[in-house]
Amino acid sequence: MRITDVDVVVTCPGRNFVTVRITTDEGVTGVGDATLNGRELAVASYLRDHLAAQLVGRDPLRTDDTWHYLYRGAYWRRGPVTMTAIAGVDTALWDIKGKVAGLPVYQLLGGRARDGVTVYGHASGDTVEAAVEDAARFLDEGYRAVRVQSAIPGLESTYGIGGVSTAGTHAYEPADAAVPTENVWDTEAYLDHTPRLFEAVRRELGPLPRLLHDVHHRLTPNEAARLGKELEPFHLTWLEDPVPAELQDGYRHLRQHTTTPIATGEVFSSIYDCELLIRERLIDYIRTTVVHAGGITHLRRIFDLAALYDVRSGSHGATDLSPVCLAAALHVDTAIPNFGLQEYMQHTPETDAVFPHSYHFEDGMLHVGEEPGLGVDIDLEKAAEYPYQPASLPVNRLRDGTMFHW
Amino acid sequence: MRITDVDVVVTCPGRNFVTVRITTDEGVTGVGDATLNGRELAVASYLRDHLAAQLVGRDPLRTDDTWHYLYRGAYWRRGPVTMTAIAGVDTALWDIKGKVAGLPVYQLLGGRARDGVTVYGHASGDTVEAAVEDAARFLDEGYRAVRVQSAIPGLESTYGIGGVSTAGTHAYEPADAAVPTENVWDTEAYLDHTPRLFEAVRRELGPLPRLLHDVHHRLTPNEAARLGKELEPFHLTWLEDPVPAELQDGYRHLRQHTTTPIATGEVFSSIYDCELLIRERLIDYIRTTVVHAGGITHLRRIFDLAALYDVRSGSHGATDLSPVCLAAALHVDTAIPNFGLQEYMQHTPETDAVFPHSYHFEDGMLHVGEEPGLGVDIDLEKAAEYPYQPASLPVNRLRDGTMFHW
Amino acid sequence: MRITDVDVVVTCPGRNFVTVRITTDEGVTGVGDATLNGRELAVASYLRDHLAAQLVGRDPLRTDDTWHYLYRGAYWRRGPVTMTAIAGVDTALWDIKGKVAGLPVYQLLGGRARDGVTVYGHASGDTVEAAVEDAARFLDEGYRAVRVQSAIPGLESTYGIGGVSTAGTHAYEPADAAVPTENVWDTEAYLDHTPRLFEAVRRELGPLPRLLHDVHHRLTPNEAARLGKELEPFHLTWLEDPVPAELQDGYRHLRQHTTTPIATGEVFSSIYDCELLIRERLIDYIRTTVVHAGGITHLRRIFDLAALYDVRSGSHGATDLSPVCLAAALHVDTAIPNFGLQEYMQHTPETDAVFPHSYHFEDGMLHVGEEPGLGVDIDLEKAAEYPYQPASLPVNRLRDGTMFHW
Amino acid sequence: MRITDVDVVVTCPGRNFVTVRITTDEGVTGVGDATLNGRELAVASYLRDHLAAQLVGRDPLRTDDTWHYLYRGAYWRRGPVTMTAIAGVDTALWDIKGKVAGLPVYQLLGGRARDGVTVYGHASGDTVEAAVEDAARFLDEGYRAVRVQSAIPGLESTYGIGGVSTAGTHAYEPADAAVPTENVWDTEAYLDHTPRLFEAVRRELGPLPRLLHDVHHRLTPNEAARLGKELEPFHLTWLEDPVPAELQDGYRHLRQHTTTPIATGEVFSSIYDCELLIRERLIDYIRTTVVHAGGITHLRRIFDLAALYDVRSGSHGATDLSPVCLAAALHVDTAIPNFGLQEYMQHTPETDAVFPHSYHFEDGMLHVGEEPGLGVDIDLEKAAEYPYQPASLPVNRLRDGTMFHW
Repeated sequence: MRITDVDVVVTCPGRNFVTVRITTDEGVTGVGDATLNGRELAVASYLRDHLAAQLVGRDPLRTDDTWHYLYRGAYWRRGPVTMTAIAGVDTALWDIKGKVAGLPVYQLLGGRARDGVTVYGHASGDTVEAAVEDAARFLDEGYRAVRVQSAIPGLESTYGIGGVSTAGTHAYEPADAAVPTENVWDTEAYLDHTPRLFEAVRRELGPLPRLLHDVHHRLTPNEAARLGKELEPFHLTWLEDPVPAELQDGYRHLRQHTTTPIATGEVFSSIYDCELLIRERLIDYIRTTVVHAGGITHLRRIFDLAALYDVRSGSHGATDLSPVCLAAALHVDTAIPNFGLQEYMQHTPETDAVFPHSYHFEDGMLHVGEEPGLGVDIDLEKAAEYPYQPASLPVNRLRDGTMFHW
Repeated sequence: MRITDVDVVVTCPGRNFVTVRITTDEGVTGVGDATLNGRELAVASYLRDHLAAQLVGRDPLRTDDTWHYLYRGAYWRRGPVTMTAIAGVDTALWDIKGKVAGLPVYQLLGGRARDGVTVYGHASGDTVEAAVEDAARFLDEGYRAVRVQSAIPGLESTYGIGGVSTAGTHAYEPADAAVPTENVWDTEAYLDHTPRLFEAVRRELGPLPRLLHDVHHRLTPNEAARLGKELEPFHLTWLEDPVPAELQDGYRHLRQHTTTPIATGEVFSSIYDCELLIRERLIDYIRTTVVHAGGITHLRRIFDLAALYDVRSGSHGATDLSPVCLAAALHVDTAIPNFGLQEYMQHTPETDAVFPHSYHFEDGMLHVGEEPGLGVDIDLEKAAEYPYQPASLPVNRLRDGTMFHW
Repeated sequence: MRITDVDVVVTCPGRNFVTVRITTDEGVTGVGDATLNGRELAVASYLRDHLAAQLVGRDPLRTDDTWHYLYRGAYWRRGPVTMTAIAGVDTALWDIKGKVAGLPVYQLLGGRARDGVTVYGHASGDTVEAAVEDAARFLDEGYRAVRVQSAIPGLESTYGIGGVSTAGTHAYEPADAAVPTENVWDTEAYLDHTPRLFEAVRRELGPLPRLLHDVHHRLTPNEAARLGKELEPFHLTWLEDPVPAELQDGYRHLRQHTTTPIATGEVFSSIYDCELLIRERLIDYIRTTVVHAGGITHLRRIFDLAALYDVRSGSHGATDLSPVCLAAALHVDTAIPNFGLQEYMQHTPETDAVFPHSYHFEDGMLHVGEEPGLGVDIDLEKAAEYPYQPASLPVNRLRDGTMFHW
Repeated sequence: MRITDVDVVVTCPGRNFVTVRITTDEGVTGVGDATLNGRELAVASYLRDHLAAQLVGRDPLRTDDTWHYLYRGAYWRRGPVTMTAIAGVDTALWDIKGKVAGLPVYQLLGGRARDGVTVYGHASGDTVEAAVEDAARFLDEGYRAVRVQSAIPGLESTYGIGGVSTAGTHAYEPADAAVPTENVWDTEAYLDHTPRLFEAVRRELGPLPRLLHDVHHRLTPNEAARLGKELEPFHLTWLEDPVPAELQDGYRHLRQHTTTPIATGEVFSSIYDCELLIRERLIDYIRTTVVHAGGITHLRRIFDLAALYDVRSGSHGATDLSPVCLAAALHVDTAIPNFGLQEYMQHTPETDAVFPHSYHFEDGMLHVGEEPGLGVDIDLEKAAEYPYQPASLPVNRLRDGTMFHW
């Protein structure tokens, strides 16, 4: 069997998605997500202009050989654009392999390791009270874990909150403008506010609901250590992205000061970005995801490394990943021994229509379908109805105007 | 699909082998090797008396769940007997999964990563000259790598040499008596002799043939460091099992003193036995094998860890592993990115007849077959013709009578 | 003197036990426990089929030579089955040596170092109140230390609790079915509950009773760190098996976060499993036991290493060890300088009848007898009345069905 | 002053180059190289589709603010495509700033620190003799340092050698086909050959010429250690890219075994890729370059870190970098305190015509011009004459077909 076509589809049914669709000479097709939020067209170019011609004629079942062909053949390895492009190809090849085997992909990865994939939702509010209410609504809907963010008094704009969030629909989209929105950030206000938020959440919702919080890489290791310590009484399931993650040993200091569990990794594109974090157990959850960490082939290697050191998976799953990525993630989540938690944010109905899929949400869990392959496809006609719309993630400035972490 | 039968077959077509044969309610069968040289019946009991009843009724495709069920369910984890029993079951389940998918197992593991599996043979001789001749014969037969051992002047018995070895047939079997043969060992004689052996081999065979040598865990780290340094001019592909391996950091000292590549791992039963060796790159080749390191499921995890740290596979493959293990090893070897070298010793014609298989040797490589599953089976009638024969590996004593490493 | 017979007896007077009985040409006999809970017959096979013939004719007084003969001669070293078999032989040889010397074994190990062996009992309850009451009963009976476990609200099955526990008789047996019982585990519920349990125990029983708690390897290092910190006000004597123990440096992180003393080791089969734990003082008590850690010969070496680094003994002593192991443990406990605490759970009357022994419980301590040897024997006729009954330890699944640590 | 236009020009005067050209409302223009060999169009898309609109209206003199705006605003940080795009913008802004100041850029960076920039050339040959001759020719032309590569006996294709090399013109271009050429690699042959090559070079050219050699990331750390040791007598100035560079501590082992100086970094896109290498002094030269390491703004920070730990610069400078990058590199090289060596390969006359520049080669050094800014420009009309030609870097396979490092 040989690859005959590699098509790259860019569509915007609510937000932009890049999809790789690979066809073989035996008529089997596979799909892979290659969406890089805010940099979609660079990945599309990488795929169309550089990889497509290299893939035609190759055996689609040689997933590992092709992965290394693309990874090593790039010479300039790693990084979000490169690894997202490779992920798109790799995911599509696993889809094909599952179809050839007549088995859902999770069976090829080790078989079913659990009944379903526990997910967490995203509660937010303009006030502490509103955030608590939103969190309660998620729990009422059967969610077993919920991330809680709230507006910070005195700060007009806060990640995931306010005009951007749309509580009730469980959807939000930070990439809201072609030229990045400029927000303002104040670490002191944030550090003062956040323990109060979780004190209120625990007071209202009790000790057992699993709670998460996202810092979005905005603290120094020592600031994060302070926050982690002050949040200990509220027993978070994880504190996400507390510090910038380029320098892994920044997490050492944090780790020595608090037992608040730490999660990071949505920005990582390879196992080398988290090798120290995992090997020294500086984190509790590794949040790498299929589409940004090189596909199923590479993500599985990251999660296996994590299993050895008792680190669990906690994959990123915001709506900047298409249903194709989500389906692939669910197959991985269903099969690995060290699954922790899966992020889940509902796609718009338009997105769901463009990407028909068999996974479904029930009782706080996502359940993968049993079709051969990934159980997801792209409807090319519908996709064509939604042309690309430029959209960028926002940036942050400190009150004095300093460019800061978003 | 459910497991209906778990049969354990012990047969001795030249030497003892333990084989697990699993049958499903849909009539699919799979085989796994569970041979532990010199302790075969303990593994057979572990399987028959403790695991068989637990496996009946389980879904054979849930390979990872079953692996953890057996590993964690044992409570008393790890060790050669336990992990060999688990390996037998795991290998049989992968065989079944391949058949269900209609694909050779290597396709489920990532697909073909190379044309064939380069192996090494075992040259030996009662004299240096005889060892050189034997090595030359292997090269003439197309082998690209050869392990060279020779008798040590003044020592009556040496591992793999003398009455035990049968140069010319490329076969030898150290487990030669029900009660262990007692050999004599002299480290000084060995250390003095071995550099002379390789000086002669290189002089006669030139700089390019890949040469290996096995120390059989008989040196202290510092003695091994001396040997490694003195062998540097002869550019070994690997020096195998230089020191006892229970304490991994014994290899640190050795590693600081020599660049002679180091291989170890045939005695390891789990990833925990080599985590430090791999993570700190104290070795160049990890020699764990399917049957003793928990099956395909676990061995793949060991090799993936090794790949991250640029350590290559070099799996044990003496004839104490049945053709079932060899077939499984070849599927792994064919699929992993960091394959190094595979040990290969020809089975007796009787063994080959009991275990019909599709792999074949050609041009210095073993080539896996393309049948669904592992491409190997057990002929139950033929197996029944060869009842178990007690046989133990020898032991070593120093000249003063001290019990030593074999 | 020569060994003439090595008999292996499997009996089930309430639970399964494997006993090695060695006879010499001078008519001296010795007994050793070789029970591996849930995997008994594999050890029995290891002894009968592989070791027995090798032992006949050997000098029974060469205990160390025989230990190395079996350990190194196995080639495939370590692991629960192998080391339990070796332990059975080694213990029986020490029994013989004591009888030959006309001295209780502790005298051969260095002589009496203390008056008696302080033990701890096992309190449990379906509620916190019941657990407190059960603990109080132990203290009333003279126990100076008690392990406290209680059912976790919302979890039907908890290790050592509920239908399995039989409070009042001080006995429980988790290996309750031929095919493992599947329990459900919830880390969040457990972590929330356990500090409340110990707050109640201390409130009711005061600050002085020595309290222990067993986590059964079910937490990650960071979760254990949280628990250890939150238990600090209640001054546990030890927190047992907080995290999986295969990778020793998992204990480093835990150790940096809490001064709650840590105990582990019941699952270890050799000194290599705890070398780092002891050398870096990552634990306070090493819980290796005669029967699973290679017998008296090897256990003494583990405890000597521990003494060097100020780690105390705390040997496992549940009823999965026969009175033969308990007697041997008491001889070791009586003689070593760094004894800490001995686990003790009463055997059934049937078990006590099968294994007549001279040790006795008094005033919170076990006292070893003064007969030559170990002061314990097996009544072969009574043993024959209780044939082997298949029984497996349970397994655990998380709420989502993931196979977990038991 | 505001940015009004950001143009991206792709041209192929012999090979593909991507150039950013920024224009301000005051008519000042600046140019930056954004060429990523084999992945050019993905960077062009990144710039055109995602960055251009964000840059218009910004103050061109705020180079650091813009750098962080692009780096942090990407959210998905680092990697070759992203950092090459940022480098293109950053370099163009420095060109503008120099023109606004009326000063060559090196003056803004600290001023002239040396008379000229010592470079090295690239000698190669199909035989050892040809390589020696080619090296001699470079020395005759005034070069003070020369990298020497030669064909490996028995290997048809070797990096930079054979049909690809064009000795005499000092030019070669490995990106030679739209679909990657597949070469064959043999580590044993290479390791055997290379010390012989340098023995010949030193014998013929004497002890003083500075010699370099490029391994191209093809060895394991231990293989590189062997090579480094065996090359010690020939006193290389550096051994380049001996091992894959994703995992920095791979260099530790190498470093312990040899004093042969080590250089690496052409594949690095950020300071985080080399922080450990520099901080632990695992290398002697850091080879990051303007165009791939985030521009002048970021490269200067890498070199400052290197200066702290006594590591020197040794920037990549093959012809996959346009004259724009080379001009920028020369300004950096002229100003920093810890300059080591600059790679230099002559561009084709067509390339030189498309990019008119004021730097020149003389007496083994490159000398930067004194015009304001970078002293380089792009001739848009000439550039338009050379449309993009797809070209990929080759890949390597081992003899058994395994995909390997290129």
